[in-house]
Amino acid sequence: MSEKKRIVVALGGNALGSDPQKQLQLVRTTAEAIVDLAMDGYQVVIGHGNGPQVGMINNAMTFSAQKGGETPLMPFAECGAMSQGYIGYHLQQAIGNELKKRGSSIKCATVVTQIVVDRQDPAFQHPTKPVGPIYTEEEGRRLMAESGEAYALDYGRGWRRVVASPMPVRIEELDLIRTLSDAGAIVITIGGGGIPVVEDENGQLHGVSAVIDKDNASARLAIDLNADRLVILTAVEKISLNYKKPDQRDLDELSVTQAQRYIDEGQFPPGSMLPKVKACLKYVSETDNTALVTSLQKAREALAGKTGTVIRK
Amino acid sequence: MSEKKRIVVALGGNALGSDPQKQLQLVRTTAEAIVDLAMDGYQVVIGHGNGPQVGMINNAMTFSAQKGGETPLMPFAECGAMSQGYIGYHLQQAIGNELKKRGSSIKCATVVTQIVVDRQDPAFQHPTKPVGPIYTEEEGRRLMAESGEAYALDYGRGWRRVVASPMPVRIEELDLIRTLSDAGAIVITIGGGGIPVVEDENGQLHGVSAVIDKDNASARLAIDLNADRLVILTAVEKISLNYKKPDQRDLDELSVTQAQRYIDEGQFPPGSMLPKVKACLKYVSETDNTALVTSLQKAREALAGKTGTVIRK
Repeated sequence: MSEKKRIVVALGGNALGSDPQKQLQLVRTTAEAIVDLAMDGYQVVIGHGNGPQVGMINNAMTFSAQKGGETPLMPFAECGAMSQGYIGYHLQQAIGNELKKRGSSIKCATVVTQIVVDRQDPAFQHPTKPVGPIYTEEEGRRLMAESGEAYALDYGRGWRRVVASPMPVRIEELDLIRTLSDAGAIVITIGGGGIPVVEDENGQLHGVSAVIDKDNASARLAIDLNADRLVILTAVEKISLNYKKPDQRDLDELSVTQAQRYIDEGQFPPGSMLPKVKACLKYVSETDNTALVTSLQKAREALAGKTGTVIRK
Repeated sequence: MSEKKRIVVALGGNALGSDPQKQLQLVRTTAEAIVDLAMDGYQVVIGHGNGPQVGMINNAMTFSAQKGGETPLMPFAECGAMSQGYIGYHLQQAIGNELKKRGSSIKCATVVTQIVVDRQDPAFQHPTKPVGPIYTEEEGRRLMAESGEAYALDYGRGWRRVVASPMPVRIEELDLIRTLSDAGAIVITIGGGGIPVVEDENGQLHGVSAVIDKDNASARLAIDLNADRLVILTAVEKISLNYKKPDQRDLDELSVTQAQRYIDEGQFPPGSMLPKVKACLKYVSETDNTALVTSLQKAREALAGKTGTVIRK
């Protein structure tokens, strides 16, 4: 066991890019920032999104299956598993390369990870997360009737399949993630929020079509690993009030009580800063630790206490 | 560290099936056999093929990119990474489910795995392994001219892209595979023979379009992990001489000298038993251990010394 501080770092899928050449470029910058943290002595566990990547994989698989490519229709959970392999490979290669550049012997690998969700989660009654290709209303309604899956209008784009976004309950591979982290490795896990599975009455796991929010999944991971800190990396250096208005105010700190008030005031946009703040609140409420929101570029400074927004009890 | 015997088990990709529903069924049978071995006290590390699966993924990705699906062309190494996520997920879920059925607390997970090959490997001068969709000669020649990639006639099928099949040199994630196995986990790794990468003059890794034979990769893994045994599972219970002829003779044992003689006689079909025998020869020549070739169904009995073909120095 190491005496190092363990941090869970949540990376956005949008920061990775879906095109393979673009992604290979972008992961280099990410790798530099992650290796900075490892060289500063942190035991880093990485959770990451997969929105653009699983979208691309699901689109290609669906297109090929429906338009004569003679490949099978691929369930959404399996597309998520593919995205974990794809993104994990690029990230672990870039991080490994950066570690070698700096003469470090730290190792890095991706663990394919399932997250158990509750079959009774109310999210399954109201699927809201658009996934896959864009259809006309007529196509969307036909596919909905044929497949029994939910389709809905994705405003400004067209009709798309929608899946549930349930809360993460348990990380199936948690013990092995801890084993690797304890051994000093940088571990890449819960890609895309984890492959969503439900547990039946006999304890057997089965994949479901759903998307677990990667910030929620990262909070779950940080709590269950007893990580010393949850670090959510996003496009901005600090959380702001009145974001992009003349009176924008950047926050150095945010208490649970303050955060709840700002949420009630509608300060944080849904689908953007709101889920990040909520994930941080969950983590700080269930632990004695603080969470940190900042940008990839400022991660090192923020962990040194020089910038970013600290969320505390 | 455990006192248990460690075995590397090589599973064929054809035994898994490319269709997701079929694969979910097939992995259950595989999981039962693997868990049998774990319950018998072996530390199991699984290497597996991905022929049908990476073929399906590469076909769908290529079809979508070329026929209007508006998704990017996916390099072959990245398709291999996707197949590791896809197959690994199904295998680890099925093995985890089977372990729970039997009340075992053993854990199982997949590690995304890169294997370094030599850029100077002569295989790169003569790519022979057909991958991806089937084209007409005209299409094949046009794609070859446009992409600079090699295409060739796959007899009886049509023109296809061909990639190199170089020898595995080093498993990049070896230390972490060992860490998990030492901790008692069943580890799924080197999917499809590993994601092939080359090392540049600065030690940086880069993906290449190639296919590493999964039996060779499994032999490499077994040697480098100091595994007590290499177990190659295939469609038959034993290696045979005069296979499928009236005078077929099944072999209980095979020495390196005998094996070499039978290879010279052309007893083992290329692309079938020949690479398996060669992989076993490599393993037994470089260690003081024996290798075993048998079927999935007979694996438990064979490890108990009751059937299968044992390859020894």
